[in-house]
Formats: sequence, structure tokens, C-alpha cells
Amino acid sequence: MERSPATAPSVPPSAPPAAPPAAPPAADPASSLLVRAAHGAPGPHPPVWFMRQAGRSLPEYRALRAGTAMLDACRDAATITEVTLQPVRRHGVDAAIFFSDIVVPLAAIGVGIDIVAGVGPVVDKPIRSVADLDALRPLEPGDVPYVTDAVRALTGELGATPVIGFAGAPFTLASYLIEGGPSKDHARTKALMHGDPQLWHALCSRLGAIAAAFLRVQIDAGAAAVQLFDSWAGSLSLVDYEQFVLPHSREVLAPLAGTVPRIHFGVGTGELLAAMRTAGADVVGVDWRVPLDEAARRLGPGAVVQGNLDPALLGADWPVVERAVRRVVAEGRAAAGHVFNLGHGVPPTADPDVLTRIVELVHSLDADGAGA
Amino acid sequence: MERSPATAPSVPPSAPPAAPPAAPPAADPASSLLVRAAHGAPGPHPPVWFMRQAGRSLPEYRALRAGTAMLDACRDAATITEVTLQPVRRHGVDAAIFFSDIVVPLAAIGVGIDIVAGVGPVVDKPIRSVADLDALRPLEPGDVPYVTDAVRALTGELGATPVIGFAGAPFTLASYLIEGGPSKDHARTKALMHGDPQLWHALCSRLGAIAAAFLRVQIDAGAAAVQLFDSWAGSLSLVDYEQFVLPHSREVLAPLAGTVPRIHFGVGTGELLAAMRTAGADVVGVDWRVPLDEAARRLGPGAVVQGNLDPALLGADWPVVERAVRRVVAEGRAAAGHVFNLGHGVPPTADPDVLTRIVELVHSLDADGAGA
Repeated sequence: MERSPATAPSVPPSAPPAAPPAAPPAADPASSLLVRAAHGAPGPHPPVWFMRQAGRSLPEYRALRAGTAMLDACRDAATITEVTLQPVRRHGVDAAIFFSDIVVPLAAIGVGIDIVAGVGPVVDKPIRSVADLDALRPLEPGDVPYVTDAVRALTGELGATPVIGFAGAPFTLASYLIEGGPSKDHARTKALMHGDPQLWHALCSRLGAIAAAFLRVQIDAGAAAVQLFDSWAGSLSLVDYEQFVLPHSREVLAPLAGTVPRIHFGVGTGELLAAMRTAGADVVGVDWRVPLDEAARRLGPGAVVQGNLDPALLGADWPVVERAVRRVVAEGRAAAGHVFNLGHGVPPTADPDVLTRIVELVHSLDADGAGA
Repeated sequence: MERSPATAPSVPPSAPPAAPPAAPPAADPASSLLVRAAHGAPGPHPPVWFMRQAGRSLPEYRALRAGTAMLDACRDAATITEVTLQPVRRHGVDAAIFFSDIVVPLAAIGVGIDIVAGVGPVVDKPIRSVADLDALRPLEPGDVPYVTDAVRALTGELGATPVIGFAGAPFTLASYLIEGGPSKDHARTKALMHGDPQLWHALCSRLGAIAAAFLRVQIDAGAAAVQLFDSWAGSLSLVDYEQFVLPHSREVLAPLAGTVPRIHFGVGTGELLAAMRTAGADVVGVDWRVPLDEAARRLGPGAVVQGNLDPALLGADWPVVERAVRRVVAEGRAAAGHVFNLGHGVPPTADPDVLTRIVELVHSLDADGAGA
């Protein structure tokens, strides 16, 4: 069983929690539980990490971020490195998720975009015409030196614990750029998609190339897996997803075949799971609405799933959480592989101790069911 | 084909739109397109109405509501009547939806609750313990005289055009009462549901009785159909829905069997459709994520569906809207009956003329496909 090595972080944590037992770094994240599970290889228990594990649920994160704007934090290699390490150090999770934001590559190529606290990404000049596409030039590695530096530092610190690279998928990025910010119904996005398919596909092709380049930078620097987030894809019907979104997600994921495992996730995607797999996903993330055994059935033979504890349960009494975790692990056994996670991101209000306890519980559950 | 009769409204509209051609009121809403479709009987074209058709998308509604708080508007029979009539008069829809709010019966029994503009329902004292249940006494018809008065006035005005009664389902009501207001993740609700099932079921039984009584008042006053809204049910997995929610929705709907058609709707309920039917729904509302032919398959033989144009498309160019409407009608033919609607409520920003045009288009499409 791999655990994050207790190497000293590059930045001292503000409130150092108890470190896991020290262990010599293993040779290679490619032999980690996460990567093995993504390939459908058996392991002693499911690997576990949490979406948004690096973030506001941790007091040491809030202390480090105090006074620093989100985008500034995402553009400083030392901050990225420390924030990415914090949950590994505290929870003993089996993977680090690179601390960033889906709009970071857009900001890096000069798109006027900021992340406003309590709102989300806000775009200076929303995209409404072909001329607006000029703002979306290709991303070069030199645009994001802090990403390369941080991933390199992280892989050095983490040894065998894999770093998961991170990018936003074309549809979700397009929604922010078209709406100008977060949207409940994505009405302008859908109107443009259906009303001007040529502009839509041109926009998404550019965004796909940017996302692919952003992931490639992280892989080249040592990321052992990547996750493509299509946060809002679940707002689409399958027919719209297949026509307008899937080709562009495939443009991101397909060229990475044979590099590192590719995880693909969105919320409320019960209707889309099989299609998302065909985008080139080795692992399909599932929210809590679809049990993992049913997700495995929809995905077809050989599928590897990630998920899917309802994050709303994190505030419940521990027996409720424990029962739910055990059910998720049991249902995950129906798939060829299972990466334990929440069904969405860690809420800012989550008690970090509950997350740590979940990691310990999952680590105690045999992958074959004997220990459950 | 029924159309709403152009009888004079009880309150003059603030900005009178063009009235549809005058016609003598038909005998009975029980022979209306809506009721016939709900029973799976053939008709010349699908009946059409829109969730939230009575509301902020209409300038005459905004004029009438100016300076009046939402709950006050819902407690005045003349206002309810006029607001309910406005979209029938303007769009020529095949049904009126009783203008109210799901929290109206709660306010009527003395629960401290208000509807805050831009926020939603806000509860003075959220429910957290058994003692708090005392606030939820049974609803008597005398608690809501304005409902009886308004439905009677409406059935008089509308002739053969049916009035659809309206109530919120126990789960959605419980979420507001437990969270204290709108919630993205329903975390407290889910924690209570799993952590204290006894309190949960006691709460939902009371809410079910209140919702049933609220619908019964409307049926007794002349409503020709009812819709039970479980707006947030789609946030649940099927197993949680079946254990914690379905029994209470059934307590509302089952006793109404044999009275009027019962419509049951929630958003993002692709996983729950068949279960929702078993709650006692004659018609199951479907959002835009699941095509109606697939919904009919999930619901099983004899199912009648309602829906499901994506409201986000209302702002698209007309050819986009028209294509989508035609597809919805075509897919609806796979069910035993189809009530045309949006897949969720009319957004406040919707252009009313587009809604009118959709009604005209649906009315031109033969139910058997010959005219499509």
C-alpha cells in the first residue's frame, strides 16, 4: 500500500497537522495504486483522493491563501506546490490533485478573466462572434512556467504518490466565455451552440487545443494521471452532448492515449457516461446519483469508475458516512477498477477530520470484498 | 380543439394583449385535451402549457405584482385569478396553472416563512428536532379561503380550459424547512434523513398530509388536474429516493386516485422516473435531459409524459426553437400520451412572443405525426 511520503514541504504549513508515518519514497508513481486501478489492475484496496481536497476545507489552506487572490495563488509555483501537498500530508490520500483552476490556461494566454470570490470566473469580454476567437491563441509551455515548476517540485516531494494533472473541458470553458461568468441554465451557450454551430465548433476546437496543451505541460513535468473536468456537461441531453461536446473532449483526450491514465468527470452525467468514456477516458468519474455498479453497467466491459460518495453526507454522523462509504466501495467492485472519491468536490464547510477518517476506512477495505 | 375562452377577466389586465378569438365555453374541463391526454386518450395534437407560465416573463404580471410581496399576491383571490388567467389569455395555452407557491400552505398554518426576492423561501426557525414538528399542524380548507375563491373564479372564467392545482412535494418542502432556505447541496436535509430517519419520516408525513390537503382544496373548488412539484428530488440517488421520499409522495398522490389526473415533476430525475410514476402519477414530468421516447421506455407501458423543451433554448433563433419543438412532439408520440411543456419553468427573461409561437406550432402538429 502506498502512502504519501512525509517529506518536508517546500513551504512550511501554517498549522502543521500530524504527519503520516515516514516511509522511503517508492520508485515510481506509475506503479501506484491510482495508476494500477486506472488500468484495471487489482490492488489491496481502492485508491482514494477527493476532488477539491486542496482547498477551503483545510485551515492550513485558508491561512496560506489569506490576502492572495485565487488566480495569483494559481500562478505561483511555491503556493501551488504547498497547497497541492497539504491534503496529501493531512489525509494520507493516494494522489495529489494539481492545485489550479480551469480558467488558468485562459488567463495565461491573455484572456481577460478573473476569479471573483463568492461568484466564480468572470470574463471581461464574453465571446459572441468569430472575431472574438482571436483572443484564444494556442497555449505554449512558456505561458505557464509556474505549472511546470510546481509539477516538478511536487513529483520530487511526493515520490511514488501520483500527481493528477488538471484541465477544464471545452464545453465548460466555452460556457464561461460565452455567458461571461457562471450560469444556471447556460442559455446563451446553448443558443450559440444550436444557432451558430460553425462558431461553436471553432470556439471549442480552440479550447480543446488549449486544454490539451495545458495537460501536456503537466504530463511532461511528471503528472502521473490527468483529469478533464466537464463540470457542466450534465446540463445537456445526450444528443446535444454527442453532437456539440464529445468531439472536442475527444480532441483533448485522444492524443494523450498511451501517456498517462485519463480521468473524465462531470456532475449529473448519468445520461452521458458511456459517451464520456468514448471521449478517450480510462476512468469515468460518476456523481452520487448513479450507483457505481449501475455506472459500470452503462459504461460497458472493462470500465474503471471514480467516485461517488455524496459530499452532502460529509456533515452527517459518522455511522451514516461509514455506511455510505462501505456501500460505495462494495458497488465499485462491479467495475474493472475503482478510484474512491466523492461524487463532486469537497464543500468548503467539510470537516477535514471526516475526510481523513474516510481515507483510513477505504484503506481498511479489501478490494475483493473480503475485508468489508 | 379547445382554446381558452375569451371571457372577461375578473381584474382588468395592466397591459391587455390581443385576445384569442371569442368562443363559447365548452361544457367541461374533464373533456379537455389535457385531461384526455393524461388518460392516454388520443387528441388532435398534444395539449400545451408551461411551468411558470404565470410569472415574471409577462409584462402584465410584472405590472400587477409591482409593490406586492409574493406571499401577499398568493393570498389574494383576485390577484391569483388574474395572474393565473394572464398566460391563458396571451398564449392560448390548453391549461391554466394555479398561481401560488409551494410554501403557501406552510405560511397558511402559521409557519414563519417568507419569499425573499432574489433569494427564495426563507424560514424563521428551521426544523431540527421533533419538538419543531409542532409547528406543522394539519391544513384545513378554512386556512386558505383565497385558494377556494380563486379556483372557483377561475373555473367560472375558463370554462372548458382546465385549471391545474399545485403543491410542493414533501421532500422539497422538507429541504426548505430544514435548510432554512434554498440550498445547493441539501446537506442538512440529507444528514437528517440518514442520521435521524424517525424524525425525517415524521416530518415528511406531516408535509405529505399538508400537501394532500392543499391539493384537495383545489380539486374540491374545481381544479381539473393537479401537479405535485418535487423540484429538488433529482439531487437524490434512486435508493435514497425510494427509501426516504417516495412513500411520502405516495401519501399525497395515492388518495387522489380517481379524482383528477395527477402530474408529478422534478428536475434532473432521469434516474427516478419509474419510481416517481409509482408514487401515483398519471403523468410524469420529464426535464430536457432525457428524450421523451426514452422516458416512455423507462416509465413502462401506458405511461403519459409531460415535457420537455429545454428552457435554455427559448432565447435561440426561432428555427432552433422550432426544430427542438418538433423533436419533442415527435419523441412524445412514443408515450401513451404527451402533454407538451418545457423541461423546467419559464425563465423570467423569456420572450413571451416565443412562448405564444410555440403554442401555435404545437397546435399545428398532429398527434399522430401526419402533420409534423
